Amino acid sequence: MADTGWPGCSKSLKGVILDMCGVLYESGEGDGVAIPGSIEAVKKLKASDLQLRFCTNETQATREKFVAKLQRLGFDISVSEVFSPAPAAVAVLKERALRPHLLVYDGLLPEFDSVDKTNPNCVVIGDAAEQFSYQNLNEAFSVLIGMENPMLFSLGQGRYYKETDGLKLDVGVYMKALEYACDLKAEVVGKPSPTFFQSVLNDMGLQPHEALMIGDDLVNDVGGAQHCGMKGVQVRTGKYRPSDERNSTVMADGTVDNLAQAVDMILNQRH
Amino acid sequence: MADTGWPGCSKSLKGVILDMCGVLYESGEGDGVAIPGSIEAVKKLKASDLQLRFCTNETQATREKFVAKLQRLGFDISVSEVFSPAPAAVAVLKERALRPHLLVYDGLLPEFDSVDKTNPNCVVIGDAAEQFSYQNLNEAFSVLIGMENPMLFSLGQGRYYKETDGLKLDVGVYMKALEYACDLKAEVVGKPSPTFFQSVLNDMGLQPHEALMIGDDLVNDVGGAQHCGMKGVQVRTGKYRPSDERNSTVMADGTVDNLAQAVDMILNQRH
Repeated sequence: MADTGWPGCSKSLKGVILDMCGVLYESGEGDGVAIPGSIEAVKKLKASDLQLRFCTNETQATREKFVAKLQRLGFDISVSEVFSPAPAAVAVLKERALRPHLLVYDGLLPEFDSVDKTNPNCVVIGDAAEQFSYQNLNEAFSVLIGMENPMLFSLGQGRYYKETDGLKLDVGVYMKALEYACDLKAEVVGKPSPTFFQSVLNDMGLQPHEALMIGDDLVNDVGGAQHCGMKGVQVRTGKYRPSDERNSTVMADGTVDNLAQAVDMILNQRH
Repeated sequence: MADTGWPGCSKSLKGVILDMCGVLYESGEGDGVAIPGSIEAVKKLKASDLQLRFCTNETQATREKFVAKLQRLGFDISVSEVFSPAPAAVAVLKERALRPHLLVYDGLLPEFDSVDKTNPNCVVIGDAAEQFSYQNLNEAFSVLIGMENPMLFSLGQGRYYKETDGLKLDVGVYMKALEYACDLKAEVVGKPSPTFFQSVLNDMGLQPHEALMIGDDLVNDVGGAQHCGMKGVQVRTGKYRPSDERNSTVMADGTVDNLAQAVDMILNQRH
């Protein structure tokens, strides 16, 4: 009988999906810093017979700028390999003919250049960081509360992430704030939305059981992937906290010290 | 058989509790403006045989400053008649030997002068308005997430309130944000906490069925009072919205155009 657990499942894998922040690098001042071993681990995956995609809830920059940063840090990565919430949201907005009021980081605005933003009939929030001021949140609230059927899209639902100078509140916290203020349920675009993971699998042409997700976020990376039928492995870098290993809701298929260790375990199983 | 509904219940009433913002006055630039008829209505209640207390979730100023504002607007009111969350929170903090990190409006800080705030072991949030910056919320979050058993007190749980230039997000929204960020449940001090309403009843020496609450907030004023066994009447001023009258969770015992109408109905029933 085949071992379907971790790392035994690696034998039958056809693709790997990597979270970026907290797995490839730690964010912070400037470009942040690459996590030791991660640059080499990505190289090893690319040299293997496994497909590789990157899946991020990063919403502070366009994919182009974000990928350029990763390249500066030394990673072998291209825009077409990266899946992020903003392009996914743009697709949804166009499909449903929605005009957003945007509460997102200035750096992300170009992603929405092609979208009509006049006379908004929905609100889209991303990780706006410092731009999550009382005034800006009030403005988004006022737009929502003035609608017959308030509609809120959130680019992810993370609680917090780690920068070099400490933990920072993520978009999910402000999503919950607006949900409570307006008594509504937001639609999440990005991880852990099954639609989002499915779009990555579609791009690789793989079934869920043929792919493995590696991330530092137990709920959004690991739990989200598992919910789609993929295996999910957590790294002990980034926002990882020891209490994650005792979580009563989500249990990772495996927990590893870092991406380098995960990749070595995967590739060892395959030889 | 006695009519126990509204306004029939007025015959057996011994005390009335009034919410302040949205019932007595509309807040906004400067002192805000008295709601037409409210100054006279308070006078009539004071001239009656009913006891009268004021119960507010106002946390932007000390009771002294807040009452002085109401007096400038023309209301016959004194500090000893007013119940607000900050003094109630101070009592709880001292009782449990807790040292708070405060995220409150600067104007409220003097209420906490007597409390030890070194090496905080809990967080207290009030309606901090513009001071709900990303940085300040992150700071409160960092204090909480660093505790073994994070403890958050919220001075009220309102969603929003009305100022002359529009609706503004209230403390409850940021309470929900921090609850989600830290995966905890806040302890609410102020309306609709039963402990808070009970302290007002105790001060009047009345049983719940002998008192009536009048407010503009369906959940925190009306629902909170009803939960304690009081009657609750909603005014169509302040943050009132027509959809409140179709709410599936809370149904007011009565809905009136404003405080003046409520008081006339009460006093008419008693003569």
